[in-house]
Amino acid sequence: MQKIDLVVSGPHFYTMAGPGVGYQPDRAMAVDRGRILAIGSQAEILASYQAERHLDATDQAVLPGFIDAHMHTAEAILRGLAQDTSHWMMYGLGPFAEVLESSQGQAAREVGTQLAFIEAIRTGTTTFGDFGNGMDSVCRWVEKVGVRACITVTIREAVRRIYQPGELYEFDADMGRRSLTENLEVMEKWQGGAGGRIRVLFGPQGADFVSREMLLEVRRLALEHQTKIHMHTQQGDRETAQIMKRYGQRPIVWLDDLGYLDSNLLAVHLTDANEEEAALVAQRGASMVLCSGSIGIIDGIVPPAHAFQKAGGKVALGSDQAPGNNCHNIINEMKLTALFNKIRYTDPEVMPAWKVLRMATIEGAEALGLGQEIGSLEEGKRADFILLDLNKPSMTPLYSEPMRNIVPNLVYSARGDEVTTVVVDGRVVYEHGKIQTVNESEILATAQGLAQGIGVAASKRFWEIDGSNAHFMREGKL
Amino acid sequence: MQKIDLVVSGPHFYTMAGPGVGYQPDRAMAVDRGRILAIGSQAEILASYQAERHLDATDQAVLPGFIDAHMHTAEAILRGLAQDTSHWMMYGLGPFAEVLESSQGQAAREVGTQLAFIEAIRTGTTTFGDFGNGMDSVCRWVEKVGVRACITVTIREAVRRIYQPGELYEFDADMGRRSLTENLEVMEKWQGGAGGRIRVLFGPQGADFVSREMLLEVRRLALEHQTKIHMHTQQGDRETAQIMKRYGQRPIVWLDDLGYLDSNLLAVHLTDANEEEAALVAQRGASMVLCSGSIGIIDGIVPPAHAFQKAGGKVALGSDQAPGNNCHNIINEMKLTALFNKIRYTDPEVMPAWKVLRMATIEGAEALGLGQEIGSLEEGKRADFILLDLNKPSMTPLYSEPMRNIVPNLVYSARGDEVTTVVVDGRVVYEHGKIQTVNESEILATAQGLAQGIGVAASKRFWEIDGSNAHFMREGKL
Repeated sequence: MQKIDLVVSGPHFYTMAGPGVGYQPDRAMAVDRGRILAIGSQAEILASYQAERHLDATDQAVLPGFIDAHMHTAEAILRGLAQDTSHWMMYGLGPFAEVLESSQGQAAREVGTQLAFIEAIRTGTTTFGDFGNGMDSVCRWVEKVGVRACITVTIREAVRRIYQPGELYEFDADMGRRSLTENLEVMEKWQGGAGGRIRVLFGPQGADFVSREMLLEVRRLALEHQTKIHMHTQQGDRETAQIMKRYGQRPIVWLDDLGYLDSNLLAVHLTDANEEEAALVAQRGASMVLCSGSIGIIDGIVPPAHAFQKAGGKVALGSDQAPGNNCHNIINEMKLTALFNKIRYTDPEVMPAWKVLRMATIEGAEALGLGQEIGSLEEGKRADFILLDLNKPSMTPLYSEPMRNIVPNLVYSARGDEVTTVVVDGRVVYEHGKIQTVNESEILATAQGLAQGIGVAASKRFWEIDGSNAHFMREGKL
Repeated sequence: MQKIDLVVSGPHFYTMAGPGVGYQPDRAMAVDRGRILAIGSQAEILASYQAERHLDATDQAVLPGFIDAHMHTAEAILRGLAQDTSHWMMYGLGPFAEVLESSQGQAAREVGTQLAFIEAIRTGTTTFGDFGNGMDSVCRWVEKVGVRACITVTIREAVRRIYQPGELYEFDADMGRRSLTENLEVMEKWQGGAGGRIRVLFGPQGADFVSREMLLEVRRLALEHQTKIHMHTQQGDRETAQIMKRYGQRPIVWLDDLGYLDSNLLAVHLTDANEEEAALVAQRGASMVLCSGSIGIIDGIVPPAHAFQKAGGKVALGSDQAPGNNCHNIINEMKLTALFNKIRYTDPEVMPAWKVLRMATIEGAEALGLGQEIGSLEEGKRADFILLDLNKPSMTPLYSEPMRNIVPNLVYSARGDEVTTVVVDGRVVYEHGKIQTVNESEILATAQGLAQGIGVAASKRFWEIDGSNAHFMREGKL
């Protein structure tokens, strides 16, 4: 008998192999040194391998871990401070983001990241697509907490200040250079880091936030470093207005002329893209990240992911940020994606449960270019998986005939606490109601301790800006 | 010192009194014989009353219990069996509903109700608007589990069989008479039952399912019994087609001519109503129940609740049924209501968090005609309230300056397990992770035990109908 690290056995495996959900009943999976060695009948696997640890998934389902492809985790410290408002970035997030980006905000950003990861791990996320600055400390955290991450450093030349409507952003080439250098440094230090769990991408914030020259340089570097460009793409009417004014074209058309739409691009949001533009991006071979909750709250818009898929593109899901989503929970994103698209098309058959589960797993992995490594439970892939408690009221009862209802119940009924166990790279990161690698209650207490100072520092600007939430506070509605 | 049953004290009370959320910091609430005696400073209340039980809500928020105004709880036994399909009632629910409505389904219906209540209590629901048949056993269950309910018996004359498109329903006057008699019997036996916690309404299933004469008789009886008519109203294009064919008018216009739109009517769904029709119903004084999740899944439609409110109407929330929602969780309904309406109007300021929280509490109570008794925490009202854990990751961090973020986090981030304690009529129904009045694990096991038989019995029809979910099973997508 071969000695290995881990075996998991149970009645319901959703491997996500093949074109559907890859359901296999009564299976066991052998895991060693972070990799899936074999999936087979329980008798066969248990007779072939002697595992140091046996996870018994009776009354549970086994699935690949979820992929959250686009997050701004640091901002979790601002949960619930920016929603129900127009001009979200300026009127909602603005006063708080200023404080968070100042030196005063550094510690808060770090604990914000930790808070976001805690929330997401507990709801089954194993791969984190974090986007922002200060990524060296995020990488150290990823290493410690034990998850997988695609790390993107924000590259930006547009000076951060209030712009009048129609005013072109002012570019600061030195600032852009510094942010590109930061991206390269993080790449140098962390590409393949944390035992191979970290991958670093390039992150121009958007075609409107950097110059044409910077975009082209990033593209050259991405090809050289064989990694992707993770970029907000036609993310709203503000971007469209900037690119129209600067170059006389809509963003996607302009990016296409620049040769930017290809398999190196992970295009986030496409909020202001029409279906033809979305289809063009897909046809050129780029992938998309859909942040349903965030774009729903911030813009009241359902991005054209369905058109993107119909054109052959792969779409991953993302939770974006807690001030304006307001949570990092991929089960929530699956549900909202299914429902929002049914509403967009007035068609209950659009985006069925199995489809959005694929977006949260194998299709998401493919979108990130990690389809060979994660996203499904198959021999040779990394062992990122979760167990789901089928005895929770939200998952009860369980049918197997004439149809199985586990997938629809996961997507439309589950809340998050059905996830009992989270394994990344063969290591149990979460079980028995606790993340095993870090002290959660300490982190929550630190987050709480730092929040009040952020709020006090943001107070003057909050009342000056006088947005919806200022009105609501005055009117006794919060 | 006056001896009383219960005091609850804590830093954050959302009383829902007044036009906003009625926030009061550092309060205590005195409860005796099911009623709120006083809310005041902790010093004042603790000095005036000696309580048998003191609920310490440190690190928690205190809110009124949630009101779920429209449910078909028995169908929870069919969770996850009917979604992602067009013609939901026929192709999705059809094969399973047939079995559930047969004599074989009786036990399954009862345990379905119990399952729905368990799920909903755990997410903070204290008032249950159940609609269906077999209500005598539901009332016994309400009495036992200890919650509040508005019970409606389905009155129906339309024969249950498959109809061709455009074919008028066949009416069976005897069947209608029997269902009306059942409604009257339940009213006779249970009106004011379970210590005053049960209220019984009249339930014509819809203007298309009963004759004009039956509608008028129900109206006469509702006035005589001083109770409301709880009716699916313009709930879809199928109803519109029936009423157009039978009477030559759209349902709401026809009901208005019949004198049916007044404060006695609780109009459910309005799925196929335009904004003018919704406004008319509101202007006539009727209330509305909005089932966002259910109508989103079943029809891909956002009903015109926003127009209803703008016309001065009160709107309650409802979770409808688990095969086609697929959960009974009012936090989910609040979130979907806010997001769906932002999307319907492409406006992030529509349906802010405080507004949907009012719909789940005081506005819902007013819609049901119970605004004097429940829906807010005020002296003289019944003591229906919940405690919410603010130390969960989903609610962290907590800000009080410059704005409080508890309400947005409850609506947009909470999942349900933030609810730690549920009190109905002054009695603790749920705490320490357990419903105190019934054996939950026994109920879940019974539900699981009965489900398989339902599935087997429905199997032949399921494959004959060959709907989306049959396709998905064959294609390995479930």
